[in-house]
Amino acid sequence: MMIPSPKDTGFEFQPYSGICTFGRAPHTREVSGADVAIVGVPYDGATSYRSGARFGPRAIREQSMLLWGYNNPLGVAPFKTLKVIDYGDVEVVPVDVLATHGAVNVEVSQIIKENVKVIALGGDHSIALPLLQAHARKYGRLAVIHFDAHPDTWDTEFGQQKFSHGTPFRRAIEQRLIDTSAYLQIGIRGPTSGKQDYEEALALGARMITIDEAMGLGLARILKEIKDRVADKPVYITLDIDSIDPAFAPGTGTPEVGGFSSYQVLQLLRGLKGLNIVGGDLVEVSPPYDHSNITSILASNLVFEYLSLIALNKLNVE
Amino acid sequence: MMIPSPKDTGFEFQPYSGICTFGRAPHTREVSGADVAIVGVPYDGATSYRSGARFGPRAIREQSMLLWGYNNPLGVAPFKTLKVIDYGDVEVVPVDVLATHGAVNVEVSQIIKENVKVIALGGDHSIALPLLQAHARKYGRLAVIHFDAHPDTWDTEFGQQKFSHGTPFRRAIEQRLIDTSAYLQIGIRGPTSGKQDYEEALALGARMITIDEAMGLGLARILKEIKDRVADKPVYITLDIDSIDPAFAPGTGTPEVGGFSSYQVLQLLRGLKGLNIVGGDLVEVSPPYDHSNITSILASNLVFEYLSLIALNKLNVE
Amino acid sequence: MMIPSPKDTGFEFQPYSGICTFGRAPHTREVSGADVAIVGVPYDGATSYRSGARFGPRAIREQSMLLWGYNNPLGVAPFKTLKVIDYGDVEVVPVDVLATHGAVNVEVSQIIKENVKVIALGGDHSIALPLLQAHARKYGRLAVIHFDAHPDTWDTEFGQQKFSHGTPFRRAIEQRLIDTSAYLQIGIRGPTSGKQDYEEALALGARMITIDEAMGLGLARILKEIKDRVADKPVYITLDIDSIDPAFAPGTGTPEVGGFSSYQVLQLLRGLKGLNIVGGDLVEVSPPYDHSNITSILASNLVFEYLSLIALNKLNVE
Amino acid sequence: MMIPSPKDTGFEFQPYSGICTFGRAPHTREVSGADVAIVGVPYDGATSYRSGARFGPRAIREQSMLLWGYNNPLGVAPFKTLKVIDYGDVEVVPVDVLATHGAVNVEVSQIIKENVKVIALGGDHSIALPLLQAHARKYGRLAVIHFDAHPDTWDTEFGQQKFSHGTPFRRAIEQRLIDTSAYLQIGIRGPTSGKQDYEEALALGARMITIDEAMGLGLARILKEIKDRVADKPVYITLDIDSIDPAFAPGTGTPEVGGFSSYQVLQLLRGLKGLNIVGGDLVEVSPPYDHSNITSILASNLVFEYLSLIALNKLNVE
Amino acid sequence: MMIPSPKDTGFEFQPYSGICTFGRAPHTREVSGADVAIVGVPYDGATSYRSGARFGPRAIREQSMLLWGYNNPLGVAPFKTLKVIDYGDVEVVPVDVLATHGAVNVEVSQIIKENVKVIALGGDHSIALPLLQAHARKYGRLAVIHFDAHPDTWDTEFGQQKFSHGTPFRRAIEQRLIDTSAYLQIGIRGPTSGKQDYEEALALGARMITIDEAMGLGLARILKEIKDRVADKPVYITLDIDSIDPAFAPGTGTPEVGGFSSYQVLQLLRGLKGLNIVGGDLVEVSPPYDHSNITSILASNLVFEYLSLIALNKLNVE
Amino acid sequence: MMIPSPKDTGFEFQPYSGICTFGRAPHTREVSGADVAIVGVPYDGATSYRSGARFGPRAIREQSMLLWGYNNPLGVAPFKTLKVIDYGDVEVVPVDVLATHGAVNVEVSQIIKENVKVIALGGDHSIALPLLQAHARKYGRLAVIHFDAHPDTWDTEFGQQKFSHGTPFRRAIEQRLIDTSAYLQIGIRGPTSGKQDYEEALALGARMITIDEAMGLGLARILKEIKDRVADKPVYITLDIDSIDPAFAPGTGTPEVGGFSSYQVLQLLRGLKGLNIVGGDLVEVSPPYDHSNITSILASNLVFEYLSLIALNKLNVE
Repeated sequence: MMIPSPKDTGFEFQPYSGICTFGRAPHTREVSGADVAIVGVPYDGATSYRSGARFGPRAIREQSMLLWGYNNPLGVAPFKTLKVIDYGDVEVVPVDVLATHGAVNVEVSQIIKENVKVIALGGDHSIALPLLQAHARKYGRLAVIHFDAHPDTWDTEFGQQKFSHGTPFRRAIEQRLIDTSAYLQIGIRGPTSGKQDYEEALALGARMITIDEAMGLGLARILKEIKDRVADKPVYITLDIDSIDPAFAPGTGTPEVGGFSSYQVLQLLRGLKGLNIVGGDLVEVSPPYDHSNITSILASNLVFEYLSLIALNKLNVE
Repeated sequence: MMIPSPKDTGFEFQPYSGICTFGRAPHTREVSGADVAIVGVPYDGATSYRSGARFGPRAIREQSMLLWGYNNPLGVAPFKTLKVIDYGDVEVVPVDVLATHGAVNVEVSQIIKENVKVIALGGDHSIALPLLQAHARKYGRLAVIHFDAHPDTWDTEFGQQKFSHGTPFRRAIEQRLIDTSAYLQIGIRGPTSGKQDYEEALALGARMITIDEAMGLGLARILKEIKDRVADKPVYITLDIDSIDPAFAPGTGTPEVGGFSSYQVLQLLRGLKGLNIVGGDLVEVSPPYDHSNITSILASNLVFEYLSLIALNKLNVE
Repeated sequence: MMIPSPKDTGFEFQPYSGICTFGRAPHTREVSGADVAIVGVPYDGATSYRSGARFGPRAIREQSMLLWGYNNPLGVAPFKTLKVIDYGDVEVVPVDVLATHGAVNVEVSQIIKENVKVIALGGDHSIALPLLQAHARKYGRLAVIHFDAHPDTWDTEFGQQKFSHGTPFRRAIEQRLIDTSAYLQIGIRGPTSGKQDYEEALALGARMITIDEAMGLGLARILKEIKDRVADKPVYITLDIDSIDPAFAPGTGTPEVGGFSSYQVLQLLRGLKGLNIVGGDLVEVSPPYDHSNITSILASNLVFEYLSLIALNKLNVE
Repeated sequence: MMIPSPKDTGFEFQPYSGICTFGRAPHTREVSGADVAIVGVPYDGATSYRSGARFGPRAIREQSMLLWGYNNPLGVAPFKTLKVIDYGDVEVVPVDVLATHGAVNVEVSQIIKENVKVIALGGDHSIALPLLQAHARKYGRLAVIHFDAHPDTWDTEFGQQKFSHGTPFRRAIEQRLIDTSAYLQIGIRGPTSGKQDYEEALALGARMITIDEAMGLGLARILKEIKDRVADKPVYITLDIDSIDPAFAPGTGTPEVGGFSSYQVLQLLRGLKGLNIVGGDLVEVSPPYDHSNITSILASNLVFEYLSLIALNKLNVE
Repeated sequence: MMIPSPKDTGFEFQPYSGICTFGRAPHTREVSGADVAIVGVPYDGATSYRSGARFGPRAIREQSMLLWGYNNPLGVAPFKTLKVIDYGDVEVVPVDVLATHGAVNVEVSQIIKENVKVIALGGDHSIALPLLQAHARKYGRLAVIHFDAHPDTWDTEFGQQKFSHGTPFRRAIEQRLIDTSAYLQIGIRGPTSGKQDYEEALALGARMITIDEAMGLGLARILKEIKDRVADKPVYITLDIDSIDPAFAPGTGTPEVGGFSSYQVLQLLRGLKGLNIVGGDLVEVSPPYDHSNITSILASNLVFEYLSLIALNKLNVE
Repeated sequence: MMIPSPKDTGFEFQPYSGICTFGRAPHTREVSGADVAIVGVPYDGATSYRSGARFGPRAIREQSMLLWGYNNPLGVAPFKTLKVIDYGDVEVVPVDVLATHGAVNVEVSQIIKENVKVIALGGDHSIALPLLQAHARKYGRLAVIHFDAHPDTWDTEFGQQKFSHGTPFRRAIEQRLIDTSAYLQIGIRGPTSGKQDYEEALALGARMITIDEAMGLGLARILKEIKDRVADKPVYITLDIDSIDPAFAPGTGTPEVGGFSSYQVLQLLRGLKGLNIVGGDLVEVSPPYDHSNITSILASNLVFEYLSLIALNKLNVE
């Protein structure tokens, strides 16, 4: 039986129409042969203030309908260059952070093993730990470009909990997942629990570029330093949407005022062109605190930049 | 390659997780062999007040994640009894009501031809006309149970336009799609443009049960009358969400105060058990005016009742 | 010069279009010859909880675009039967309740003197006092039908303030503006500052029908009692939107749960048919706390009922 | 030094003013000598759909400013009759449901040991388990009046998790905390995962009054049955706000349409007058999904009814 | 009869008060003698994502109450220098884009013929086509300064539709309404359907200043280029509110992140001082997606800048 | 009796938990010995557009839970260096601006007399007058750093009212509370009622730095000028949140587009390090118009900067 052309993959369909997978990529768990899998991790149990990030993957997918397909500044059409699939969501366990981490680690490892790159949609930032575990197993210690308002290198949170959205990068460094000579924290700001929060991050080896330093340096010098440190190492990008000012990204769990504009972060991401990006995540989008979807629209555009960077790398190789 | 069980069809997956098709039914345009196809019609160009119903299908799908699967009052699990598919959306043309109607008529006719029942998710009420056209072509003149605050039997709207969300049932009667001896309007209320609005609906043959009459009759006697009129005729259900009071269904385009509670409408739908339902629609859900999704949650439950009624019919036949 | 017909008076124009006066009535301060003047009183300085009622008149006007014109249950088209004008707003003084009351009293008295009935749109309930002053000057002591969750008969509020939204009816009784034999409070409920709140209202002469009594009596018996008490006395209707449950009317300053449905209040108002209504107000609509405008849509419909009742009286006289 | 009278305990202060403890009760952890302690449990990690209930305690406290103090239908001023304190919140552990339950159990047990009654503000419904544990330790097996849309008697959720907001009452029955001859579930409705959900609840010994049965019985007969079963046993009230229709209580995690009105639930609670209430909770208020605070206003009023019932018991004893 | 001074024209009245015409200008269709007519076009049927712009004119009028009257940077009081009227809205036809365009063209042509300048309030950007038709009939080919995130020079949209909010400037160039040597697109950014979107705009003759180029050039050099190109030609300004970043203008249909700040666009508009502005529009304000009215407040200020520029021109001529 | 450690003072408790005082400072009216008292003034009766600022103090307190305690750019932990108390709210009189001012003046004077610095949370800007009165009584004429979009130096508002949120600084200068040689207005912009608004502010002695001048000067030169003028005079900071752009601070009563970013204002405040700050206020936060609390989060951070500056001064003295 023939039905009129579905058109609900690809961007010919109007943005208000059809089933929402990321960028209308096919939804499948058959990952073999894909270049990139979009993987949702709808877990928000490890956040210290506003929950809601469990709906981040769904909202980002919905707003990705607006990504018409071609990245003009980078000159690439990632959905054409790459075979992108939407894997759907990892089956998280809201009541148990470690069970959730285990599920992420297992599922993402299996995808990566197939030589498929993963871009994970959070969920809260605690999920960066199993994501780094899965990637380090495949690629060895990782260069990490970490956009955030907070260092996320506490030792414990909620009393003596080792696993929370405030601790993933300390755990990752302890577990030797990160090449700290190539670990940059960008956009850090806001009150902390004490002087030691920054000191400890530095002691762990992070190159912390606070918002004040970032505003002083300018984008070109930040990018220069990133490239000097990362060079050709396998690099993982982890972007907490609260690195961007709440005016541009209100829909998040622990907003910090005085952050980047979305224009600045777009420029920073595009400036990563040429780096050997092996994976990434975009976390802490909390739709119940969004309005008019401006945070999830921004997030879907940032993921589009990730895809574009990976697409350029593929083109350069070919 | 084996990946852990996807579970993103069926209701084992948690409601916050996964890709949103209606009730996690498979998304496909291969309709052969299905019992029911859920079909979105994201068109809101014919509404006289608040637009936004173009996002109705998407919102109803999203909230259908909450439909755990078993209908207790009716004792049926429609997603198990029926093979339900999510067809996705008809490709509407926002700038042209007739082109939209044509697309609906063509696509829905093709589905129906395969002996698949269609439940359409609006979109504004203008889409009832092509839906009735498609169904009448298959089934002949239809009994119609029409829940609404407004008769929608104007001759023209927006000046001299014949096709709008205020005119579909006059057009349908003119086109002899409706068996007016079995055409009931239920829940009618609110100011009208004049005395003639009701008079003309009655002259066209509608049995109008205003909200005042409905409240006086009570549900049992309304159901008695419906059954007497419809008997075993093929019946189409068209439900404008504004039949329900704005307290229960704020997310709609032309709210009328003083309507049914959602409990009352659920009881009315369940009371249609045994009727020969050949299709239906649920229209005028306007998500930008919804809050906390209560309107789309209600709408997804009402569609669940439609499915349950159809499932019971299938069980009775078998 | 000839421009295509404006149509922006009357309901031929679509509800999303044009300048918002109440029911598209002409905006003028030339009141002579009018039957009814709609008068806004955008004052919210006397509320004990959430402010915002200063935007009540504007929101009610905007949603009145939906009032297509004909009242079916009452069989009357008030904008055709009556010459209705939209007077605009009294110039209130946010920092000074007494200056505001003075302005209301003066302006409304001048309108009434011209034999024009006034329907005032609040604003908080403190404005009922100068409205009653103006009406009593013209009509003598008034029968008052008072829909509310609260008696509003405190002696003082905010320390020793005599004028607030919690005191107008005590002041009015003290000033002998109300015929207490025909003063009914309907829908009273919720916690009070003590047992004395109800006792004092009763001692002042009010016939208080609490929500519990109202639910027990049913609408017919409430209406019977209203009519027995009011008989043919000049009657003023004052309706605090919080008489209606917050599910139906969330946009208000001091919501009380467990109230009337909007259907019940519509029926009560329609049941006042035949009473000698000399004026009225609708107060405490607070748009910043409304959603999807359901409160202001309800309020505009209630004002439409006021107009319909007055129109029926005019028809009966003619 | 003398500063003008603070007045920020008691309801003399205006509702928009001052620090928000429940009903302006003193905030202290010195519980000895108190009659009732209000205890917040800001945990939302065990919910299957929308998170956000972690902010329930804060929102309910804020809206409790509106509780002027005197309960007219019951004729009691609970904040005068009882010594009420606001204990603040239990220190929950978002990443670990069992650690949270342990903290609730320990802290609440210590309060109860001092002969102080606890009313807990959720948080999601998983917290009912440790609350029942603490109460059963003190009072023995409990009669339980359970208002809910869902039975919450699943065996597991989120895969094989034993502790979630869908399982507390099965766990409690297994742990012999509940006297099942006096365990009533009231307001149950909506789709379930299968026929077995109800069957299993019944097999566990619950008297389930579905919404359909409740609407048929009427409030008086429901109350009769409650009283017959509970008699003079120590009774714990657990009220999931989703027992009430989303029109009245939109701010919740798993809304079910077709529920009670707030008026009905207020009447049911008041009807429990005279029962030997030893504790209670009010759960699943999710402020990010509330609008205009109507859900938290309702919740604070329901807690006010709990307090009023306890106050009446104290008066009767004295 | 004398009533106290109305004061509801002019800005003496407080912003929360009175009937909302633009800047409290008189509402009339007698255009002769006016300098500028504000004309609403409440049509949103041609948008590819979020509808709602039909309420743009109403929201902009409402927020214009805040425009106290004097433009400090430009040193002019436009409502005093100019005779401004509020024409109300063109009667659009939601179901038919061409009928709508016809109505706009006819009505605006008649206004312009009277030597009255028109500032149109959208509505979606499709309305720029009939506006340009009307202006070109009067003034000949127009210089056009076009602020937008998108080129809007597609050939077709929604399948083969020639008229949409994505095509007006291609149609206008085809119809020789625009002097392409003086046609500037400013603020273009975001993903497009392919490389060809920009190429085709350039091929049509547009001078496209993408956001990246704009940020590099700085405002002074952008203004220099605008003035060089436009010189003393009759110039039409068309401003899509999505040219501004969604942080500043969330209330729009197809938001693009990474745009101008409102400060930048205000400076750009003020920099147009001295150009021969013959008309303009401000489109794509979608109030259902606005919050706290910040988008419509911005829009009303931008229209105030248009008026100020026209007022300066009048002063210079005199 | 021993209960587990409360932890609900200090920032060890999670931000979603516990009773909301500012920064979890103890709530007390025993001010002796404190360094700083946070004082709420929940009055919004003097605003010319959107009310709601009465909830400013409550919302700022709630969001202050996110202030982890240590100010990294300034290197100080103000809640450790200073003894901060939360005084609660002054008992305002909504119906009477002068009674409110009297209460503020009296209560704040008594606090200041005890050598406790006051940071007041508004409420609308009218409250700056009694705050300046109280401070000038203690410290003599004050240097004033005034962040605002509006000069607030009108002579009258609302007709002939001398006391409003548009007049406090004229009144203060008339009453010789301000040392005009050290009075700076920063961020002024937007339409005014005429040329005279700025002229009169200048004539009163203000150094007005409009937004245009500020953007031209850059932060360093603004700070240089502030320091030159203020030198070592006792300085009062008054910050109207509308000095910041509505993108960053939508929750306010009279938004003006084209303002500072929050980053800019944070930098300006931190640049005041070393000035002799004797008190301050933060006004015009209107929570009903906020979304996702971004305005109140910003406000609580700005107050944190005030505290940090005062803490540095204390450290320098010691």
